[in-house]
Amino acid sequence: MKTLADAFEHTLQDVYYAENAIAKALPKVIEAVSNGDLKTALKDHLGETKGQIKTLEAVFKSIGKKVSGEKCDAIEGLIKETEGVIEEAEGAVAKHAAIVGCCQAVEHYEIARYGTLREWAKALGENEAHDLLSSILDEEKAANHKLTHIAITSLNKTK
Amino acid sequence: MKTLADAFEHTLQDVYYAENAIAKALPKVIEAVSNGDLKTALKDHLGETKGQIKTLEAVFKSIGKKVSGEKCDAIEGLIKETEGVIEEAEGAVAKHAAIVGCCQAVEHYEIARYGTLREWAKALGENEAHDLLSSILDEEKAANHKLTHIAITSLNKTK
Repeated sequence: MKTLADAFEHTLQDVYYAENAIAKALPKVIEAVSNGDLKTALKDHLGETKGQIKTLEAVFKSIGKKVSGEKCDAIEGLIKETEGVIEEAEGAVAKHAAIVGCCQAVEHYEIARYGTLREWAKALGENEAHDLLSSILDEEKAANHKLTHIAITSLNKTK
Repeated sequence: MKTLADAFEHTLQDVYYAENAIAKALPKVIEAVSNGDLKTALKDHLGETKGQIKTLEAVFKSIGKKVSGEKCDAIEGLIKETEGVIEEAEGAVAKHAAIVGCCQAVEHYEIARYGTLREWAKALGENEAHDLLSSILDEEKAANHKLTHIAITSLNKTK
């Protein structure tokens, strides 16, 4: 990894791995959730994630590189944390709140990565990649806002 | 973990572990960085992190719990990713950009966690904890903005 273009490709491989890992992990999270709003939001996000995987494939294509993933330690840790919470949480309120919290941590990780990737694409003059990554970033931000809304609505109900 | 108070305490232990892990990992990151602005920002953030550890101890005290940490898989993964980048990146531009990117991923993780914890503190009527956590959240957001500024300034120079 010597140039900004190398860093870009490397991080793109990271997020490609991460999105695939999320798509694989989400069904278990959806199953663990009983709250209707959260279940719907996570199901929607699973659909979005599958779309983002396709969009990332288009980003690889736009920079003339072959699609590949590289093990991403950060997402592995974030998913492990979420699985731990599903296992440890017993009460409905605690489980719901803790799962939303973990999902928001994943969203924020993605927001950080796509924010970085988008700026790098711009600096590299990769305009198509920039626009594709921006569209994913917008979706991640919207997903995070939805989770914040669900979290606060639920907390207000428990008061 | 049955109640929201349990989830709050559990997540507080997570971030306490995370901040301590960050304080331990940052000196190696600072050493790997040659860019003056980034080095200064990371040194400042190390000082802030040490202050945040003290603030978290005050949060434990405010809810009448003893200070303790619990292994946080997410931060372990994020730090491992950063260490991997330091090892793999060779060129100054790639290393600098990749390190800033990893630090922003860590910041975003913290922003997610403190955002959640603060809302839980509010719902639990833990006003002192809420205010202390809000002060840390503000610091993390400011640290992230500083990193964004450094990232964009450097990218513009490489153009």
